[in-house]
This record gives sequence, C-alpha cells and structure tokens, in this order.
Amino acid sequence: MHTIINFLNQKRTIRKSLIFLSIIFVSFGCKKENNSKTEVFVTNESELNEAISKAEAGNTIIMANGVWKDIQIKFIGEGTEKAPITLKAQTPGSVFIEGVSNLEMAGNYLVVNGLFFRNGYTPTNDVISFRVSEKKVANHSRVTNCVIVDYNQLQRDKDDHWVQLYGKHNQFDHCYLAGKTNGGPTLRVDIRGNQSIRNYHQIVNNHFGPRPRKGGARGETIQLGGSFSSMSPGNTIIANNLFEECNGEVEIISSKTNFNEIRNNVFYKSEGSVVTRHGNYAIIDGNYFIGDGVNKNYGGIRLVNTGHWITNNYFYNIIGENFRSALAVMNGIPKSPLNRYNQVTDVVVAYNTYIDCKSPWQFGVGTNISQADVLPKSEIRSARALRTEVVNNIIYNKVGDKNVIIEHDKADGVTFKSNIINNQSVNFYDTLKIKAADFTLTKVSENIYLPTLTNEYEIYKGFGFETITKDLFGNSRETKNSIGATVQGEYIDPEILDKTKYGADWYSNEIEPTSPNIVVATNTEDDLETKISTSKSGDIISLSPGKYYISSPLVIDKTITIQSKENEKAEIIYTGTKNTPLFELNPYGILTLKNISLTGNGEQIVFSNLKENMSNHYGLTVQECDINNFNYVLKAYKQTFAQEITFKNSTISNCENGIELSEETNDKGDYNVEFLTIDGCTFTNINQNIIDYYRGGYDESTIGGNLLITNSTFKNCGSKEQNKILLNHRGIVNVAIHNNSFVDNKVKLVALLWGAKNNVASDNTIRNSGIIKTEENLKQKLMY
Amino acid sequence: MHTIINFLNQKRTIRKSLIFLSIIFVSFGCKKENNSKTEVFVTNESELNEAISKAEAGNTIIMANGVWKDIQIKFIGEGTEKAPITLKAQTPGSVFIEGVSNLEMAGNYLVVNGLFFRNGYTPTNDVISFRVSEKKVANHSRVTNCVIVDYNQLQRDKDDHWVQLYGKHNQFDHCYLAGKTNGGPTLRVDIRGNQSIRNYHQIVNNHFGPRPRKGGARGETIQLGGSFSSMSPGNTIIANNLFEECNGEVEIISSKTNFNEIRNNVFYKSEGSVVTRHGNYAIIDGNYFIGDGVNKNYGGIRLVNTGHWITNNYFYNIIGENFRSALAVMNGIPKSPLNRYNQVTDVVVAYNTYIDCKSPWQFGVGTNISQADVLPKSEIRSARALRTEVVNNIIYNKVGDKNVIIEHDKADGVTFKSNIINNQSVNFYDTLKIKAADFTLTKVSENIYLPTLTNEYEIYKGFGFETITKDLFGNSRETKNSIGATVQGEYIDPEILDKTKYGADWYSNEIEPTSPNIVVATNTEDDLETKISTSKSGDIISLSPGKYYISSPLVIDKTITIQSKENEKAEIIYTGTKNTPLFELNPYGILTLKNISLTGNGEQIVFSNLKENMSNHYGLTVQECDINNFNYVLKAYKQTFAQEITFKNSTISNCENGIELSEETNDKGDYNVEFLTIDGCTFTNINQNIIDYYRGGYDESTIGGNLLITNSTFKNCGSKEQNKILLNHRGIVNVAIHNNSFVDNKVKLVALLWGAKNNVASDNTIRNSGIIKTEENLKQKLMY
Repeated sequence: MHTIINFLNQKRTIRKSLIFLSIIFVSFGCKKENNSKTEVFVTNESELNEAISKAEAGNTIIMANGVWKDIQIKFIGEGTEKAPITLKAQTPGSVFIEGVSNLEMAGNYLVVNGLFFRNGYTPTNDVISFRVSEKKVANHSRVTNCVIVDYNQLQRDKDDHWVQLYGKHNQFDHCYLAGKTNGGPTLRVDIRGNQSIRNYHQIVNNHFGPRPRKGGARGETIQLGGSFSSMSPGNTIIANNLFEECNGEVEIISSKTNFNEIRNNVFYKSEGSVVTRHGNYAIIDGNYFIGDGVNKNYGGIRLVNTGHWITNNYFYNIIGENFRSALAVMNGIPKSPLNRYNQVTDVVVAYNTYIDCKSPWQFGVGTNISQADVLPKSEIRSARALRTEVVNNIIYNKVGDKNVIIEHDKADGVTFKSNIINNQSVNFYDTLKIKAADFTLTKVSENIYLPTLTNEYEIYKGFGFETITKDLFGNSRETKNSIGATVQGEYIDPEILDKTKYGADWYSNEIEPTSPNIVVATNTEDDLETKISTSKSGDIISLSPGKYYISSPLVIDKTITIQSKENEKAEIIYTGTKNTPLFELNPYGILTLKNISLTGNGEQIVFSNLKENMSNHYGLTVQECDINNFNYVLKAYKQTFAQEITFKNSTISNCENGIELSEETNDKGDYNVEFLTIDGCTFTNINQNIIDYYRGGYDESTIGGNLLITNSTFKNCGSKEQNKILLNHRGIVNVAIHNNSFVDNKVKLVALLWGAKNNVASDNTIRNSGIIKTEENLKQKLMY
Repeated sequence: MHTIINFLNQKRTIRKSLIFLSIIFVSFGCKKENNSKTEVFVTNESELNEAISKAEAGNTIIMANGVWKDIQIKFIGEGTEKAPITLKAQTPGSVFIEGVSNLEMAGNYLVVNGLFFRNGYTPTNDVISFRVSEKKVANHSRVTNCVIVDYNQLQRDKDDHWVQLYGKHNQFDHCYLAGKTNGGPTLRVDIRGNQSIRNYHQIVNNHFGPRPRKGGARGETIQLGGSFSSMSPGNTIIANNLFEECNGEVEIISSKTNFNEIRNNVFYKSEGSVVTRHGNYAIIDGNYFIGDGVNKNYGGIRLVNTGHWITNNYFYNIIGENFRSALAVMNGIPKSPLNRYNQVTDVVVAYNTYIDCKSPWQFGVGTNISQADVLPKSEIRSARALRTEVVNNIIYNKVGDKNVIIEHDKADGVTFKSNIINNQSVNFYDTLKIKAADFTLTKVSENIYLPTLTNEYEIYKGFGFETITKDLFGNSRETKNSIGATVQGEYIDPEILDKTKYGADWYSNEIEPTSPNIVVATNTEDDLETKISTSKSGDIISLSPGKYYISSPLVIDKTITIQSKENEKAEIIYTGTKNTPLFELNPYGILTLKNISLTGNGEQIVFSNLKENMSNHYGLTVQECDINNFNYVLKAYKQTFAQEITFKNSTISNCENGIELSEETNDKGDYNVEFLTIDGCTFTNINQNIIDYYRGGYDESTIGGNLLITNSTFKNCGSKEQNKILLNHRGIVNVAIHNNSFVDNKVKLVALLWGAKNNVASDNTIRNSGIIKTEENLKQKLMY
C-alpha cells in the first residue's frame, strides 16, 4: 500500500512541475465568423481551453502554427452529425505537439485534424485518447490527418498507446504513426464497458510506418481489446491501411474481440502476422501480405478461436514458418483459460491466393504436447482445429515446394476442397487436400501476380458462402466466380504501395537518399570528440593514423561510422575512470567501428548505453577491430535495446567480461538485442560473461532473440565463469553456433542448447572446453 | 479400440432386431387433392417413408390415428416459405409414437403437428432432432402442437434430449413436455458449426410440465449450447413459455451461447433458476418467477459472464438462497478455463420488481476463496462482478428483511442507483444501495402484486438504456416511465397461469382429483399380492390384523399405501430367499407403509428396486412401522432414484445393514435420493451402513441431496462399520442432525459434517458413540 501512495504522490509532483514549467504562449486569440459557422483561432493553452469550453456544434477551433509544448488537451464537446466541433491545425502539419503532452476527447461528433506529435511523450497511458475518464467517452468522433512519430516514453518498459479508442462509432483515418519503441500497442481499441462495445470504429486509410523490433511482447501495431473483454462484440473495422515494416513483435494486428473486420489492408514487409488472438468471428478479407522471399519474419494470418472467415487474401513471397507462416492454424488448449489459446473451430479459409510462399499452410501450430513434462496441463496446446474449411484456394510456386502443408499436429478436423496448386510438378505432401494443376500467372504489378486458369475448377460452397459476394478487387463473385482471391480476367493494378493513398496528406516518410560526409579526425586534443558531435547522422569519421587518448565517454546519438583512414589501425586508448564506457550509445546512436584498435586499463567498458531514459534504440557494428584490456566489452542496461549488434573479424582479449546483454530478467519475454552476431572473431582470456544474452519467461509468442556465432575462436576464456557455461544464451529462441573453435576454456559447457526451440550447433572444434549440451525442454517461468 | 468396435456391432444388432420386430401396419394409403395442395394419408412406416420421399413443397402427409411403434421417422424435404411440407396427425393427439422411436428432420420449411410421444424412448440421442446428420440440418422448420411425456431411457445414466434443435430459424411451439427422469436437458439447442449459429430459433408458447428432481447434474429443462461452443452467437429466443415444476436440477434454463433472449416466460414453482452459465449478452426480460414463500428451491436468475441485461422481470415469493436467490450474481474464476466460471462484467439489472423475496440480491455467489487449500487455483471463484449496474428496481417485503442484499463477496464493482424498497421500516444492510420508501401494492391477480408509487423516483439512465422501451406488460416506457418492472397504473391481469395459452391445444396436464379406493386385504394366500396388483394408483390397501407370510417380492409399480386396518400392527413375515426384497419398488412405484410390522430371517432386504431399467423414479414412506431382522432395510441400486424417502416414528432393529443409498460412485454429482428423512425412529443393533448416503464429485451446482435426521435414537449400532462412522453422508450438501440420541454405538464418529456446505447438527445426546466432527473443506474429485 505504501508503494502505491508514494507512487501517486510522486506522479502528482511531476504533474505540478510540468504545469509550472509549461511555456505560457502570448495570447492573441481572435474570433471570426465564417459562413455562419464560428471559427476560433487560438494561440495558447488557456485560449484553447476557453475555446473548447465554449464550443458549440458547428464550431471550429484553429490551433496556431508552431510548437505547443507540455500541453494536455481535453477536447470535450457536443457536436452533431451535421455540425461537428472541429479542432484543427492552422496549417496541417505545422502544429507541433511536443514535450509531455496528449489529447483526450469526450462527447459527440468531434473532429481533430492536422496535428503532429513529436519530440515528447504522453503523461498518461495514451497520446490520443477517445475518452477523458472511464465513462466520459467520445462517440461519432474522428481524428484525421494527424501524425505521431517517435513519441516514446523515456523508458522502454513504460507502456503506453499512441492512440486508444473508446466509445462508439469513432474514426481514425489518414494518419501516420511510426517509430514506437516502448511497450504497448501503437493503437488500441478498448471495449470494456457497455459504452464501448459494438463500436463500429473505423480505422481506415492510415499509414502505419516502421515500428522497430521491440525485443519482447507488447509491440503490436494494433490491438483490439484484451483477453478479459474477449467475450464482447467489438465490430471494429480496420480497412485500407498500409502497414509498412511494422516489426514490433510477432503480432501486427492482435484481434481480441468479436466480429472485427480487417479488410483491404496492405501488410508490406512487416515482421509479424495478423492474429485472431482472442475473440471470434473476425472477417479477414481482401488483404495483401507482401514479403521478399528472404526475410522469414514476415508473416501472414495466424488463427486462434472460433468462426473466423479468411477470404480473398493475397500472399506474396511470404516464407515465414510456424507462427509466421502465411496461414498458421494453431492448436488450442482444451478448456483453455481465458487468456490462453482456445481451439480453432468453425473457421473458413476460402478464396485466397498464395504466390511463392514457403509451406504456406501450417496446422497444429504451437502444439507442445511434447512439453507436458515441463508445463502445466493448462498450457498444453493439444486441441486441433475442428469444423474448419480450407477451400477454393490457389497456390503457385515458381520453385516447387515439397512441404506445401505442414501439419505440426494433424489437420484431421479440417475439410479441404477445391484447392489447387501449380507446384512445378514437384511432389508435395497431400494431393487429397490440394490438387496439382497447370496454370500460369499474370503480372498485375510489382508484387501482384495472379493465376490465369485455363480449366474450370469446381467451387466448394459451404454454409454461408453466399455472403462472399466480392473478390480481392471488389469484383462481383455472384455473376462470375472462381477459386482464388480474384475472379478471372478482371485485373486492375490496385497500386497498393502508392503511399499517397494512406496517412496524412502533408507527411511523407520517403527520405531522399544522401551520400555520407567523410570527416577526417586527427589525434589532436578533442578533435575526435568535436567531429563526432558536429557530424551529421550517417557521416563517416575517418581517423588519421596514431594514438587517440580519450579520457571521457564519446557520446553517440546518431548513426555514425568511425574507421581508420589508412589500412593501419588507428589506436584509441581509453583513460577514463573505472566502469565508464569509451562509447556511450545514446538513443538513436548507431555506431559502426571499423579497423580500429581499442585499449583500456582493465577497469572500463568499451560500449555501453544510458542507464536510464534510453527512449529509443541503439545499434553497434564492430569490424576488424582489436579490443584489449577492459572490464566489459559491452554492457547493456535494463530497458535498452538494439535491433542489431555485430562483431566481425575482430579480436577481443584480456577482458574481465565480454558481451553482456542479460538485463531483462523480469521474465516477461523481453530481451536486450534482437540479433547478436559474432563472426570471425577471436576471444582470448575473457574471464566471465563471454557472451551473456538472456530472455526469460515461457512465452510461445515472443519468438526472438537471435544469436549467431560462427567462424570464431574462444581460447582461455571462462576462468571465473560461475555457471561454468562459456556461451550463455538462456531463453534465446534462435541460436546457431557453427564452425567455431573452442580451446582450453575452463568451463563445463560451451553452450546449453534449447532443443525444443531453434537452437543448433555444428562443425565446432572443442578441445578442453567441456561440451555442447542440448536440453529439450527448458524450464521457464510462466508469464501468464 | 476393441471396445468401440464391439459397441458398434452391438448397436447394429439391436437396430436390426428393432426393425424386424417392428409391427407392420396394414397399408391403406390413399391420396386426395385438397385446394390444389396434395395431402397424403399414410398408415404405416413404408407408406410414410414413401410419402416423405415424394413430398414436394406444399404437400401434407397425414399420419393415421393409432399407435406407431418402433418407428424412426426421417422427415427430409424441401418446402418453401409459402408452401411448407407438413407432417401431421390425422387427429392431433391421436397419433401415438411409442416404443423405440424418434423423429429426425432435415431440409427447409417443414412442419410437424400433433404427435404424441409416450411409452418408449429414442434409439438415438434425441426424440425429436432438427437434423438427420451433422451437416444435413433443418432450417425454417417447425414442430408444433406435439406432446412428449415420460419418454425416458430405461437407465437414468443414459442421457438423451427430447428435442434438439440444429440449423437456423426453426420453431418449437405449443408443445407439452413433461416427466423426463433420465440424464440430459429436455430441450437443447446445438450451435456447433456455421450451419447452426445465429439461429434465431423460436422456442415459444410451450408448456414445460413437471420434470422430477434428477438427483445430480444434467437435468436442465432447456440448454442452449455448451461451454465448447459458448463463443458462438446463438440468438435463440425462448418466449411466452410456462415452466411448471421444472425441478430437474439447479438450472431450468442453462444459457451457454451468446445473444439469447429469454422473454415473457413464467417460471412457476420450479426448483431451479435461469442461468447464464456460459456465453454472454443474454436478454432476460419480462419474465415471471413465482414461488410459494415456503420451498427454498425455487430460484430466480443466476448470472455468470458478460453483458447480460436483466430487465422488467417480476419475482414473487422466491425465498431461495445463494445459487437459488432471486438475483444471484456469481463470482468468477480469474482467467477461467473455458468450461468454468467467467467473471460477471458489464451486466445490467434494471427495472425489476421483487415482492416478498428473501434476500433477493446476492453477490459473490459461489465464492470459494476459503477453499483454496483443497482446490486448484483454476477452481477458485474470486473474481467479483465488474462494471455491473443494479438500478431502477423495486423491492417490497410484507415482512421486513434484515438482509436484503447478501454479499458473499463484496459487490464493489456494482453500481446501485435508483433502487427502492418498502421493508416495513425494518433496517436492512445498505441504504446507499437501496433507498427505503413508502408505497403500497396493488393486487393484479393471484400471484401478481405491483407497487403503486406515490412519489416520483428518479430513473437512472445507463449506456444503452434507451433500448428498454417497454415494461413487463409491454406498455411503453418512452412516454411514461417508472422504476420497477411496470410503469405506473397500467395493470392488466396477464393470466400467466392460464394453461390454455401454452402447450398443445389437445392436451392438458390438469388431473381431476380422485378419492383413493380403500381395499381390504387379509392374510389368506396371495390376497395381499392380488390386491396390490389389481388396485389403482393412489389406492390404500388396508390389512386386516394377522400375520402375512410373504414368500416372494411384492412388486410396487404405482402409488400405493399399505396400512393396518386396526390400530394393532398387521405383521408381515417375509420368507423369501436370501437378498431378495420384500417390497420391490419398480419405476413409478411410490409406497407408503403405515403401522405395520415387518420381520425377516436376517438375510433378506425390506425395500429395494430393480437392478436395471429403473426408467422412472420410485418413492418410499415408512410410518409407525417395526422392522426387524433383515440383511438390509433399504438397498438402492445404481441409476435408481427416489425424490423422497422417509422413515417416521418407526423402529428398526437387528439388521446387518440399514439404509443404503450410496451407489452413485461415479463422482459426477449424482446421488440416489433427493430427500432422505429420518424422524422419530429408533435404530437398534444395526451392524453397518446404518445410514449410507453418497454424492461424489466437486460440483458447486449440484446442490443436493438432503438428509434430515431428527428426534431419533441410535443404539448399539455400527459394530461392523469399517469406516467407523455411524451416519455416512459423504458429499451430501444439506445435512441436518438434530435432537437425536446416540448411545453405545461402536464407532469413532457419529457423523463427519462438511463445514463449507449446509451440514449442521444440534441438540444431540451422544454417549459412548464417538463425536460429531466438522471438516470445513471436504476433498472431492474434480468433475470438470
């Protein structure tokens, strides 16, 4: 109890400070009549508040261009259908909401237009909220033409949402949201309470731009509801949006309520899937899932629960496996707890087209019957799909696929009818489920190739199929029908990647490519520090030969490359105090070091980041470097995250500790780096924590991180390693240890692999260093 | 696997036999034209089958009056909305479907009219089924004006349904169903599969007549779906039905799907509740719950899950407690397994009227936090109702009630507004939740008394309350509204107990009361046997004084009373063979014995029933009798059930075993008698199983049986009782042991009471007989 009270007091104090600190704009408000509708021009918070409090149906409040800092807008009003109350930017995109700010709305028929949220974060749970209190919600209201970019909390573990919808009949459209790195779905619909069910919200024509990998759960781009309200009717519509590089976690859209409709969206190079995580009777119709045939993290549609209809969807170059396969039908838990996995039943997967997708249909996904020893009964996903129809679909593979269907568990409750495949005459598993056929593709656009059928194929008609009246392009299926996502011969380029169709009309995320500046630094006093701080993101700093004595941390807060000018390695000698880092990687700091020698006094750290307020990710690549005599090579703090950390062709020697990425010990599925790559390196005389990379918590759906150790040598390491394991990667899902040499390391195990997950090792030479052991089922704390 | 094959073969053999055995009716079919619609008159199975196979839209098939035995009707056809295909009785109620028979329907627009199912049972799971196979269902079809009475399987544990609806848009109306004693809901709606969801079935204007207590679970009168399909939309309508003495189990209607509507029904003296057991968003509107102020088993509405609206209901003289209270809001299990108890959230209880109901509002019902030691976490109901509104209700008590609201667990998630009570100035628990008010009642009819308000009371308006447009009687709430089930001043007697409004028009369950015949029997050879077999149900056999030597069991298959003619006890001396019963209680056998002495040779049984085929219940009352020297006093076999067994003012002595009602050891909640009453009796020298009464299985919703032991003496009993307990009643929920005397019984415990349930003992004298011990939480096998 004490803790809670303290926390509340603290929060109050912070709020007060923010109010005092908030800049008082000079007031120059004025009112002008415009076509009998009142427009109010406001320039500061008090004018805005007054205008809102006085606004009547039909009024428009215009916010002056400029930066509005530390402002909490409560937009409460009663508009009407014909005369809404509008809050808009003087010039769309020129009103910047910054600092500790947010927007809350309540009432009826409100419109918000043209705001740009950046350089800050919300003091509450939401940046834009369609309510001001639990029962005071907004209805029939709209947020349009707004942008939120990088509006992240200072700490990754402080969850929030950028948009949260409550109430009914609201619309969020033509907005651009990108760069969320902290926990929490980017956009969420809450349906707890009768005020928010059957909401018919429209989330349409938005551009969901890149969301970086989060390194754990709670990184969805859209979440509809939650398991505890998953029995309620949501009726939310997500349509005509572009999802671009939405890589936050394994679920791009997590549908957790009933009767939602996900239509005509484009999922472009997004590392995740549309998942019917809870709730039932979703319609997922006419969507495009575009991969590149290389990245296995781009997924399709993953199904849990009852009654979903997956129709008219197009999948291209999706090669994800298992959870991330184009169609992943999960096993459920018999009598599942509310927050776990219900069985798939009464699902229809009809009229979809799969082009060059690897093993696009996977059933029994998530089965873990073999883990019955380490998991409680209430975690065992053994309930196979029932009363499910997979029919009228077309698959085309330009290179034949031997495993078109993968049954992790038997698909014996699934009816397969009227499915065809052109598999280039390569045999595939089950010709009863899909019939081999000979047909060609017609190119419609860059990513769209549609089957041109020369034969007539029988169309299976299940219960309710008469409701599937249109195809992917909206052509009628009633007059002329065909299996596959489209009827034959009606191909118009849908221009799915034309970004002008999505998001705010005044904002583009396309960046002109620029060439980096090459900046030469010498070892004269402070020259390197100055060059780093004055160079632009993307620049290359080229070190003249010589010794660089550095006495305090070099702050890296942008993308920067530091490399030796000549072949000969420039030498950086760090003379800073104990446990300070030579390179302090700040938010946005993405450092590449090439061909440099780094030497310490045995007590410092080479690379580290901020202990607090890592409000955005960092990154590190080390190539052809020599690192010698430090306490730590890399020390990552809790709540810091790098998408990639790479050591290549480098030597690391005589350090007390190696690469330490093991601070996420909350066992909630979080971890400190998505990809840790060690290739062609030599580790010598590293006493402990040679590689220490941790992910904790039993969570089948955080399916990272990734550790790759190849072509490297580890020698005389681990003498002080308490757990007697050289490479510590407990809980990491993907581990590959290949072609390495382990010599005279004083440990019992080189590595302990997690057999049930994707942990593999091969072609390693091990001498006097223990063994590589595999444990099939690692015990993990239950997260749920 | 072998077992299954054998079972199938066996089943096939049985079916074949039935076909051979079926009586071949003489064929005298004829066709006649009638208003351009074809009518086909059929007199036997083959004519019927032919007529069905040839039937076209608009056709009528008329079944000839008489008994149709062992017939499985498959009524398959394609009618149209304007021209259905009808199967009807020549004279409604004169076509008797008997023996091993059933009716299955599939197709569209079929009508069945006027059939009477009796004297038999179904060979399948359903007597009337709206499908012929999993996917061949009936739609837009109707069964009307039919009756099913006592159409029970031979064994109580063989479950079936009398009516099962599949498909969509079917109607079951104006039927009478009564007397189901075996397991399985009387009427069930199945919604597994897309062919049966959103079914909008209408179950209307039926008369659900008495369903006897079943003694365990699976005795619902109506069940909508099941937990495994509880995520699907049902949209079933149950309206304008009369439920009379539907006592099968604790749930009269068990709603397990979503969006069902239960409107304007009358629940008359029915020992159970309307329960939203699974599924969400039920509407329970305008129903009458009529009790008698005496029987505590008559319940009201019990709520589990989300989003239900309980409006405009009228409760009269309902004094049920806990699960059976007029309004029982249950605690849920956090993250409940699919088949257990979800939390109550987003429920509205508005505009209801409660007249003379005891503690009508109970919250936290089913809380079992205190049982955390003996139950797994997934069984602990600790999640209190959330976001629930109890508003605009009226309560009237002619005798003030100190505990109007009972909070088994806190109702802190419930909003109480605009509720009033006339509690005759008696203080009650919480005046914030209900306001004391002064108003009178107006008598509308026998069971209907409505509040007449003299003051205006504010009406609370929650989200969506504008959809409550009518009151209990159908009066508009839009023009003139009031709290309570009815608007003010618009009282017309709804004649809720006018039975002509419900059920088949040709059938009445009203029986003229007749005086019993008094038949005198003497002890001349076989006279008693003859008198028993020739007397009518209800008769009294009066024994002339003397000794009656009976050498084989007396079969009791009707209601009969046997008593001594004079004050002096007639003596029955049983000379039958070992382990045979003096009285063999057959189905329907309800025996009352008065003032008789019964003596055996120490090896026989006084009362027993059939080992198999107890297709209906029996009953036993023993008054002022002396029982001496038997092996068993009463031995009940498995699958036998008595609603009441009573021993009063009788002596029982020198028997090896006493009253043995402990055969239901499957631990599924079943038991052998509902009420076992021992009053004023003396048990002497009973060696073991003095009272042995068992209910097994942890099941919070089978809330019987009932054991009452009062004013009795137990002496020198239990010498061979292995478990050293005199009164064995393990698992029985209601046990009362009062004012007895226990002397010199060689046991350790007189009784082991289950503290958490309704087990009580008081004012007993115990000498040299161990103690009465209470165990708070009895360990029970989990049923689910």
